[in-house]
Order: sequence, then C-alpha cells, then structure tokens
Amino acid sequence: MIHVYTGNGKGKTTSAIGLSIRTAGYGKKVLFTQFVKDMEYSEIKILKTILNIEYKRYGKGCFISRDPDDEDIQLIKNGLKEIKDLIEKNDYMLVVLDEVNIALKYNLLTLEDLKFFFNIYKDNLNKDLVLTGRYAPEELIEIADLVTEMKEIKHYFNDGILARDGIER
Amino acid sequence: MIHVYTGNGKGKTTSAIGLSIRTAGYGKKVLFTQFVKDMEYSEIKILKTILNIEYKRYGKGCFISRDPDDEDIQLIKNGLKEIKDLIEKNDYMLVVLDEVNIALKYNLLTLEDLKFFFNIYKDNLNKDLVLTGRYAPEELIEIADLVTEMKEIKHYFNDGILARDGIER
Repeated sequence: MIHVYTGNGKGKTTSAIGLSIRTAGYGKKVLFTQFVKDMEYSEIKILKTILNIEYKRYGKGCFISRDPDDEDIQLIKNGLKEIKDLIEKNDYMLVVLDEVNIALKYNLLTLEDLKFFFNIYKDNLNKDLVLTGRYAPEELIEIADLVTEMKEIKHYFNDGILARDGIER
Repeated sequence: MIHVYTGNGKGKTTSAIGLSIRTAGYGKKVLFTQFVKDMEYSEIKILKTILNIEYKRYGKGCFISRDPDDEDIQLIKNGLKEIKDLIEKNDYMLVVLDEVNIALKYNLLTLEDLKFFFNIYKDNLNKDLVLTGRYAPEELIEIADLVTEMKEIKHYFNDGILARDGIER
C-alpha cells in the first residue's frame, strides 16, 4: 500500500517513525530513508540501534533559504538508485521516503522517477511505502492508497517559539 | 507544551511513538501511556526495549461494540493516579496519554481530572505532554499549545481492507 503523510501540521515524519517502530516490532524489515534533510535528527540515534530498521539519508539541507542546485539533484538521484537496489536485495515490509514530497515540489525528481515504487506498492497488502512531506502533488494523492493530511489547527511556532531539540528535531 | 493529535486519519498514535523515539534519542526520559486499548500493539515490543522509555497501559478495550462500564472508569482512574505518581518521581521530558481523547469522549474522565497535567505542561518549553485520539473536545483544543488534525483524505479501509498487523497494530 502507498501512504502519503502531508499537510502543514506537526506529525508527518514522527508518524513515519512510529509506523517503522510498529513494523519492526512485528518482526519485519524496514528501510527508512530521508531526503533533503541535512542533519540526523535525535530519533535517528534510536532507529540505528533497532535490528530490523535500516537507515539512509540523501541530501544536504532544506530549501527555505536557498534554491536547490545540481548537487541536490545528484544526491537524490543516487539515493533513489541505492534504495531500488536495497529493495531488490531485501524483503522489506515497509519503506519510508521521508520528505520526498519536498523533493517533488522543488522538481528535484518527478513522479516518473518514482514509478518503480508505485509498481511494487500500489494495492499491495503485503508491502507498504510511506511518502512524507508538505505539498504532496495532486497526482501523488491520486496514486496513493492512503492519504492523511496533518493539518495545523494550532502551533506554538506561531507564537514565536523556535524548534526544540528532542521535540522538533 | 501540550500537544493534541486528533482527527479521523491514520497517524495519531504513530506520531506519538515517533516523538517518543525522538525525545529518547535526545537522551531524555519518556513516559508513554495508553488508555482504552486492550492489547499491546507491535510497536510496544520495541518501546519496552528502549532505555529512556517507560510504558504503561490502562484499559480493557475500545467502545465500538460495547458501552464503557465501571471497570473501565476504575482502570482509567487508577491509571491517572499512577501516572501522576510517576511524573512526581521522575524527570520526564515527554509524557504521552495515547487515546485519552476517547476516554474524554466517553465521559470516562473529565478535563478537570487532567488539570494536574495542564498546570505542569501548559506554556512549558522544557516538558511536553501529548494527548491523542479522535474527538478531542473543543475545550481541550483551547487549552493546548499545539493541535494537529490528522485528516483522512483517503484510506484503504473504505475499500473494505481490514487492519493489518505491523501496519495498523
């Protein structure tokens, strides 16, 4: 099944982490990958210690303060290739592409580049794929089997509070 | 800070798990508690192995097919008491009350019963409380510092697909 976690609220990446913990707890293998993010958040320390979870990160930072460049595109391209190789060699029940929607939004990759994944996971009850990030494009929502919009109703960021270690990263 | 994860979409409990993993990865203590749920989902096997996370469950099942009874109320009452004792004795950075919104919805407890928590966590940048579950009441949304609505845009349950181990539980 293909899951999309999108929207402007808190809870997209943490949901993907939680689902990974659930699948790993069920005794099945998980590949958790992150795009765009340039640092390992606090949770990664734990994910790396869990036997059933494999972690990979591709990217050199977000695009709030700069435009993406050729190196960003190359990192994502190499990442997708490595993920495909890993999927072909391993029996993952769950694969997470964290923040991949941001890469789509900034045209660092296209839905065509993700066709390999859609062919495996669409309508497949035995294997799940999670794509997270704001701005999931309408065509991806069409393709997905499950879409949750994490909708911000209220957030302390709007009161000038900054991201905190252990809570936002 | 007080977080509420509500709405009819997938991702409320998994977000709370993911946040717990993040806080634990940051080296801080977490108390993860569950109400209403009568079984340990797959993720609990992993949570219990993580040094910084303490896990407690209070309840004997959901109220889809039955009405809550006195035993449900007593279990929740005892649970809240134990949680308060644990909070007073331990320096948790994060406390999760998973599915507590359901207990509120079914009048198994009132917002007044949660006042102890609100006094500690409201506007507190150093300690966070997460309340999850559908049907968060309006008064709780008023009190919270952060509210995300996990909104179902699309779900395979609507195509007759049943909950799967390792993904939904």
